[in-house]
Amino acid sequence: MPRPHPSSGFAPGLPAPPRLARGTTLPRRSCAAAVPAPLGTRSREALSDAMAPLGELLAGVRGVLLDISGVLYDSGAGGGTAIAGSVEAVARLKRSRLKVRFCTNESQKSRAELVGQLRRLGFDISEGEVTAPAPAACQILKERGLRPHLLIHDGVRSEFDQIDTSNPNCVVIADAGESFSYQNMNSAFQVLMELENPVLISLGKGRYYKETSGLMLDVGPYMKALEYACGIQAEVVGKPSPEFFKSALQAIGVEAHQAVMIGDDIVGDVGGAQRCGMRALQVRTGKFRPSDEHHPEVKADGYVDNLAEAVDLLLQHVDK
Amino acid sequence: MPRPHPSSGFAPGLPAPPRLARGTTLPRRSCAAAVPAPLGTRSREALSDAMAPLGELLAGVRGVLLDISGVLYDSGAGGGTAIAGSVEAVARLKRSRLKVRFCTNESQKSRAELVGQLRRLGFDISEGEVTAPAPAACQILKERGLRPHLLIHDGVRSEFDQIDTSNPNCVVIADAGESFSYQNMNSAFQVLMELENPVLISLGKGRYYKETSGLMLDVGPYMKALEYACGIQAEVVGKPSPEFFKSALQAIGVEAHQAVMIGDDIVGDVGGAQRCGMRALQVRTGKFRPSDEHHPEVKADGYVDNLAEAVDLLLQHVDK
Repeated sequence: MPRPHPSSGFAPGLPAPPRLARGTTLPRRSCAAAVPAPLGTRSREALSDAMAPLGELLAGVRGVLLDISGVLYDSGAGGGTAIAGSVEAVARLKRSRLKVRFCTNESQKSRAELVGQLRRLGFDISEGEVTAPAPAACQILKERGLRPHLLIHDGVRSEFDQIDTSNPNCVVIADAGESFSYQNMNSAFQVLMELENPVLISLGKGRYYKETSGLMLDVGPYMKALEYACGIQAEVVGKPSPEFFKSALQAIGVEAHQAVMIGDDIVGDVGGAQRCGMRALQVRTGKFRPSDEHHPEVKADGYVDNLAEAVDLLLQHVDK
Repeated sequence: MPRPHPSSGFAPGLPAPPRLARGTTLPRRSCAAAVPAPLGTRSREALSDAMAPLGELLAGVRGVLLDISGVLYDSGAGGGTAIAGSVEAVARLKRSRLKVRFCTNESQKSRAELVGQLRRLGFDISEGEVTAPAPAACQILKERGLRPHLLIHDGVRSEFDQIDTSNPNCVVIADAGESFSYQNMNSAFQVLMELENPVLISLGKGRYYKETSGLMLDVGPYMKALEYACGIQAEVVGKPSPEFFKSALQAIGVEAHQAVMIGDDIVGDVGGAQRCGMRALQVRTGKFRPSDEHHPEVKADGYVDNLAEAVDLLLQHVDK
């Protein structure tokens, strides 16, 4: 398996948040980590025993940030598939006293389309509960008077309806999927090379994500391609940017030290949240790979088989 | 204009070659650097005066390595166009006592196709005079028992005719042009992610090149994309790899300190050749940009308007 890329670490200068012993790991149910065993295969008592050390880490948690792709569902043809137990887990979380916010780097679909898809899979979720990079980018574009050339998927174009794209003075790149053609990449490159001060805004910098059909290149590799071609550095809007996590926390009125992030991306979700002072659990679903548990730079506060197990833990321990 | 990318520097550990005062710059004829004034606009005497300091740097030169794209011609629709004066310049060089070798990172065409195109433009060049990355890569593949998944342009596929591509255990990436589709990039990514020890071989790592229609993304940005996606580092075959320059020098039996490289790429041609102990001139044609003359890491031994001027210099000074 490929070794982690040295540049996937963190921006220097942010203090490490205070935390308890990190890296509590629950026993894995099976080697096929991305395919969790059905819920209910372990007794409640056995589960409780295994979780004891991790449970202590969850003291004082008031809010939960949930990644979507790879935690709630795997995207793919026909709308993707819900990850076993996740529909119920979200419902249980939302019935609890915990504040819940969905924090995604999804940039191929508008929030409306994403939420519609998730609701069809049975999730209790609404557009107003989602923090996503496209709206955050639009705010930045407006604040700075930037007129983007958009290298994006048609599915997310509606988020930019109110943005002036004439005579572009920057490039916005998102997970464009099939629209990452040579011609489209070259057009974005040429716009950047014509600018005196080229600005490249990237909606996330994920390396890849998991679709039902397999691993798929995310926006990050294409961001790196344009960075190298133009000799510039992109501004990332989305996880693991601290501003992005903070805006999600603000939306539910929870402080970083009172929050836990649950995601499948060891760097973007777990590392990013920890750098903001949050606790973070990695699920063994979605793009999780066994080597993530030995990542040289990031150690999750805990590793759980799936969202259902994370919610079991939270609901057992947060009110104690 | 974009600032140079920090990663476009050199591999550490190679000793800097001994050299004379570097960076002699001839006066620019016009601001439109990539469009040199027609030859013959300056008297022979004026030219001689301007070249005096640079001429000294050429003492002892016995061999010349010539980049092709951006020095001999600009590629593009209909076979591209010869750069003014370059056809005659190559002919004059080949009539002199100097040894000449063409050293290209062209990886979109086979040598046969490239040479055919250049001959149609009037150049005196044969396949056996060209050092190109595809044949060098084939040698490496055979030596190491590697079976590549090929992410290449159809035009260069014939160079790999003798290579076993079944059950791939590495990826070879070249300047694939329009074949850099999302689907093709994703297939290469998936092959690499399935390998225990992923090997990515890149035919050059150029950022971009100039076609008659404008600047075009080269293989380098796509190499960087796969490096980032998989957390690996590519092996580069072609300029600026020292092995590649050395093989070109060996072909003409010239030592590095007796040779000069003439190219339009400040990093790949000029910097790479200098790291091998050669002298190097940058032409103000092809992908040359004015900021190249103030590159923070690489300083050419001299900057000339075009190949014709470089050959004027060489023929005036090398036999003195």
